[in-house]
Amino acid sequence: MDRENQLVARTARAIPSRAGGLLRLGIGDDAAILRPKRGIDWVLTCDAFLEGIHFLANLHPADSVGYKALARATSDLAAMGATPRLFLLTLAIPSSRTGAWLDGFLRGMARAAREFGLRLAGGDTTRCARTLASITVMGEIRAGKAIQRTGARAGDFIYVSGKLGRAQLGLELVRLGKGRDRRLAEFLRPHLYPQIQIELGEWLARRGIPSAMMDISDGLSTDLARLCLASQVGARIDAGRLPCVRIPEQIARRLPRRAHDPLRLALHGGDDYVLLFTVPPKKVKLLRRAPGFRHFARIGVITRDRHIVLVHQPGRAEILRPLGWDPFRQSS
Amino acid sequence: MDRENQLVARTARAIPSRAGGLLRLGIGDDAAILRPKRGIDWVLTCDAFLEGIHFLANLHPADSVGYKALARATSDLAAMGATPRLFLLTLAIPSSRTGAWLDGFLRGMARAAREFGLRLAGGDTTRCARTLASITVMGEIRAGKAIQRTGARAGDFIYVSGKLGRAQLGLELVRLGKGRDRRLAEFLRPHLYPQIQIELGEWLARRGIPSAMMDISDGLSTDLARLCLASQVGARIDAGRLPCVRIPEQIARRLPRRAHDPLRLALHGGDDYVLLFTVPPKKVKLLRRAPGFRHFARIGVITRDRHIVLVHQPGRAEILRPLGWDPFRQSS
Repeated sequence: MDRENQLVARTARAIPSRAGGLLRLGIGDDAAILRPKRGIDWVLTCDAFLEGIHFLANLHPADSVGYKALARATSDLAAMGATPRLFLLTLAIPSSRTGAWLDGFLRGMARAAREFGLRLAGGDTTRCARTLASITVMGEIRAGKAIQRTGARAGDFIYVSGKLGRAQLGLELVRLGKGRDRRLAEFLRPHLYPQIQIELGEWLARRGIPSAMMDISDGLSTDLARLCLASQVGARIDAGRLPCVRIPEQIARRLPRRAHDPLRLALHGGDDYVLLFTVPPKKVKLLRRAPGFRHFARIGVITRDRHIVLVHQPGRAEILRPLGWDPFRQSS
Repeated sequence: MDRENQLVARTARAIPSRAGGLLRLGIGDDAAILRPKRGIDWVLTCDAFLEGIHFLANLHPADSVGYKALARATSDLAAMGATPRLFLLTLAIPSSRTGAWLDGFLRGMARAAREFGLRLAGGDTTRCARTLASITVMGEIRAGKAIQRTGARAGDFIYVSGKLGRAQLGLELVRLGKGRDRRLAEFLRPHLYPQIQIELGEWLARRGIPSAMMDISDGLSTDLARLCLASQVGARIDAGRLPCVRIPEQIARRLPRRAHDPLRLALHGGDDYVLLFTVPPKKVKLLRRAPGFRHFARIGVITRDRHIVLVHQPGRAEILRPLGWDPFRQSS
């Protein structure tokens, strides 16, 4: 269990949090599920977006910070198949950023809200030496249709809905100070303005196709480990099937060594916000009509034992450790 | 309009936030109101609690930080008359605080959750150089019964539900490093573990007695200005009727000059979380059965012109400026 997971478990033990009544699903999945009336579930989740942790104030454009803060939170709704409705924004900023920077931030967030179909319902604004945004987002879904992390069973196939490692590649370029270089827009976009797979999540949930689903925000190795832990299963991943990025030579030249390896980016890179889901073999045929199906990759299979094994080629395999983004791995 | 209010208005203009449909009341009041089904409104609000802004890590006990972070958010529900149900917690802490400090924090928050009848529905945990908590809290109320800030009319009487300035006095003691001094518990408690007036809020809203209501979190002068602005009215406050604290001589001796004046503490001190509400004359009689009525003070009357006037004695009056807590007044 990674350290973030341990903290969540400790919090849930300390504070009254048992599901029941109005609260259909409590702490531990992508989002909580409430049932305000028969036939409808509300899906509710919150997410922090912090300067120095999730973005770098000097390197990330203000409108990307606003866009991404909302995208990140909304992706947890997509991961359950819910339709986004409303959000609340807690925003703390230094006085020095209440001018043009804030305009850019709000512009990016407004664009994300329109794209995702979200309305701002309320918020809290305060001052802080470092910028931070915390967002609570609420979505709606037909009662009982939300896809949780807990349903994966041995034999289910494992899919991802798009390329892995693109956002990490963009981050490496931002770290080089290229975050505003228009010639690199194609490589920066997945990191600065990630696509959120709302439509796909809704489509999959409506048909009840996935046995388990979540979004990849912290990297495949870390998020797949969470899905497997929640479902009490393991997985075998075929390295050759991972939908890796292609890195053009003229880009690779500029990058630090750690970013040269597309497989490593695909396994451990964060922020892609593609959907990771498992499908029982008998439902695989239904998948073909999914929006964006041609971008899907079937990357492996769920297994009974609890390990996650990465198979490079027949006879060459290794245990896949969760080496994606874990905020508590570095000390502070 | 204070700077925090200006920021809220700017945010509401930039991001889609118009009320309508599910969203009955949008940004700008104590909380948003949603109507999930006929007969029931849900009240939703979020609140930040930040190290260095709302608490001082070296001076405030960890369990007070946890208690107060939740109390502060929940007070906005009480201010509308709603019954607290669920909350979500975004928590960012330095790695160095994941041990005993976090245990204390969770213990305080758990106690608050039990007292307020709240269950933790979900959250997000991450690392940050400084501790921050952002809380979204959800409450329930009979449809249309929530009391907003907008309904005060000229001639309505103005009430506060308890003493003013007690929390500020506690803060001054904490700043002197006395936050853990058990002999001062009585003076520290209002600041460290504020009472939230949930029962009173429910009682008042159920009977539709107040024409407008909010909680005093940033000081009477600042919060009354907000209520008046929202209702497009003014007020006349009788200084002699303000329920000020009495400061014993042995405490006063230790305090800095600014904290010696009970009137000043009552006007501008923050964090008291008493309710501030206006009542039409014909409903005043109904008030007498309110829980805690003997602690109420009728401090003035709503007026037609837009100023807030503080009357010291017949013939001696001044315009009351909002000099309570405004996070953007100091620079950072």
